[in-house]
Amino acid sequence: MSSYEKRGVSAQKEEVHQATASLDKGLYPRAFCKIGPDSLGNDQDWVNLMHADGAGTKSILAYLYWKETGDLSVWKGIAQDSIVMNLDDLLCTGIYDNILFSSTIDRNKKLIPAEVLQAIIEGNQAFFEEMKSYGVNIHYMGGETADVGDVVRTIAVNGTMTARWPKSKLVTNEKIKAGNVIVGLAGYGQAKYESAYNSGIGSNGLTSARHDMLHKTYGARFHESYDNSLDEQVVYIGPHQLKDEVKDNDGRKYEVGQLLLSPTRTFAPIIKEILTNHFDTVNGLIHCSGGGQTKCLKYVPENVKIIKDNLFDSPIIFKLIQEASHSDSREMYQVFNMGTRMEIYTNEKDADTLISVSEKFGVDAKVIGRVEASDRKELSIQAPGEVLVFS
Amino acid sequence: MSSYEKRGVSAQKEEVHQATASLDKGLYPRAFCKIGPDSLGNDQDWVNLMHADGAGTKSILAYLYWKETGDLSVWKGIAQDSIVMNLDDLLCTGIYDNILFSSTIDRNKKLIPAEVLQAIIEGNQAFFEEMKSYGVNIHYMGGETADVGDVVRTIAVNGTMTARWPKSKLVTNEKIKAGNVIVGLAGYGQAKYESAYNSGIGSNGLTSARHDMLHKTYGARFHESYDNSLDEQVVYIGPHQLKDEVKDNDGRKYEVGQLLLSPTRTFAPIIKEILTNHFDTVNGLIHCSGGGQTKCLKYVPENVKIIKDNLFDSPIIFKLIQEASHSDSREMYQVFNMGTRMEIYTNEKDADTLISVSEKFGVDAKVIGRVEASDRKELSIQAPGEVLVFS
Repeated sequence: MSSYEKRGVSAQKEEVHQATASLDKGLYPRAFCKIGPDSLGNDQDWVNLMHADGAGTKSILAYLYWKETGDLSVWKGIAQDSIVMNLDDLLCTGIYDNILFSSTIDRNKKLIPAEVLQAIIEGNQAFFEEMKSYGVNIHYMGGETADVGDVVRTIAVNGTMTARWPKSKLVTNEKIKAGNVIVGLAGYGQAKYESAYNSGIGSNGLTSARHDMLHKTYGARFHESYDNSLDEQVVYIGPHQLKDEVKDNDGRKYEVGQLLLSPTRTFAPIIKEILTNHFDTVNGLIHCSGGGQTKCLKYVPENVKIIKDNLFDSPIIFKLIQEASHSDSREMYQVFNMGTRMEIYTNEKDADTLISVSEKFGVDAKVIGRVEASDRKELSIQAPGEVLVFS
Repeated sequence: MSSYEKRGVSAQKEEVHQATASLDKGLYPRAFCKIGPDSLGNDQDWVNLMHADGAGTKSILAYLYWKETGDLSVWKGIAQDSIVMNLDDLLCTGIYDNILFSSTIDRNKKLIPAEVLQAIIEGNQAFFEEMKSYGVNIHYMGGETADVGDVVRTIAVNGTMTARWPKSKLVTNEKIKAGNVIVGLAGYGQAKYESAYNSGIGSNGLTSARHDMLHKTYGARFHESYDNSLDEQVVYIGPHQLKDEVKDNDGRKYEVGQLLLSPTRTFAPIIKEILTNHFDTVNGLIHCSGGGQTKCLKYVPENVKIIKDNLFDSPIIFKLIQEASHSDSREMYQVFNMGTRMEIYTNEKDADTLISVSEKFGVDAKVIGRVEASDRKELSIQAPGEVLVFS
């Protein structure tokens, strides 16, 4: 049994897919989110979409950091995580504006006081204000906060988005085909619309990252921060304290807690400009969230091989996680985005245009791979020193 | 400290209201749900609404029952709870059709297998199918299921709804005024659209009900079913096993587990017919959910006194809870609906018409009270043997 399984998580969510197999797949089965007819407007040229996601176990990292430092601002990051995990999924269907958002917060009232709720709610508002300045309008419709300490050990922060969008402006991934190249957008660094270095961690794989990175003492001090029935061999088995300082190869310093808690970057300002000005160049969009670099396999056609042989070098957070967990690269690339979080499938001649849009916003971009004809669906990833093949 | 506080719950949600005080209240501050402009359709005669709620800690009761009996069907009821806690709130704004639904399920994968997820998802579909036969169309847009055992002890089942609705058909509670009468709809019994007796419990107050009703042995056998840091004096301190049989005054037999797990009744078929055929008679709608019989205080104007002096006799489940918890009536009426779950504020001359619609669907209804002029907002409830006053 892998430590992933021992911890009760699964990057590929086999069970969930099995349980939802009977559900209708929507109008465009290959689209990144389920898309339905325009029930709300009754216009055959439009569609409706609802999408739910959240900060997952990253909220526990915020809890630990807040308990250690008293710094409430980490909850603003969790607010952003719960929004961007929805927003950047919506981007992949072509939607970047006029979105409704509702939040669902389940908390243990004995551990999570009102000031934390307030930090999250104000964090939502602040993020929406900032996006508005880039023409990405998200309407905050309210939400529910429930005191359910018998269900939730600390806090669960989830969000749901709704959009209505014209069919003519949808990205359904149906245009992805042999001959396409893949422009990858970096999830790390500092975008022009970010106020600090972003580690690129996103909001996936955080159960593994937390247990593999953080020291045993966290389990001893914070029983409420993990499933107490887990095998002790997989609970907080890392070398780090949250306030530890680490250095990269260039001698730059980072704090471990800040690296783990970097709010998930949104690519909304970039994708908005690309879809507004270069819509016809976009054949597909994949958000490398759950499933990491293998996510694309769920959305590309059956008759192609995806070759990613020019990914960004992994930023320091993923190197630290891999060192701490002793995971092989195969596992790392299946769980984490490894630095490249958004993929644009496009034509070779258009790649430079899209790259320059991303760079204008301070986000590194380059051609990371390509789509080749194949008799079966396959993915080949050039990792450091080895080629990983998935199918 | 009350046992409610010791258990980390609060019927009145003071902290949540404090944390959300900075949020915009929407177009109609007195409406039961927050209502926004028509961002999705850009029509000034229409509005948009998103609403989130869930089954709360009732999911723990389902877990205990399922573990004891192997009966997966209780999860169908939890699906219904997570839907109706949204749907019946929407009814109170006048919305009864063409609704989008998305679910958010957070589970501990080690305890909650795929078959439980499947029962919930199929439960959602079955409920939507049934509502469709009454002209209440809810579109199942998908959702998220996350494996987050370090956050969630067992399972949290939440839902979010979206609607677009004409302003002319909204119920905003602004017409509630002195002289109105209140038609109450019973939450218990068996509606024509229900397949079994409904205890009327709904989905509120279940943390109290579970600990006060169920025997200490549940805590010993199911550590995962409560916050282990709670004072043992408030953890499973009741007389019952879930399979216990109880009798009412008429000698009818019920199973305690079935009473506690009765799926929250929806009033959608009834409210739909009332709003379709008698819209102008409806001055306000209040769903007695969190806050129980005191819920109305949040929505009526400042210059009225609400007098409820003819509520339904509480059905057996609330008598059992009060016996087990030794709660006084004041606490019971603040936490539970006590049998009357939906209030229609109307004119005296129209009450009989509305009552007859409800009775046609097999749901008891009667004038339970009235609205009187007052110099300050007040609520008077005739409970057995005493009058309770809230302000």
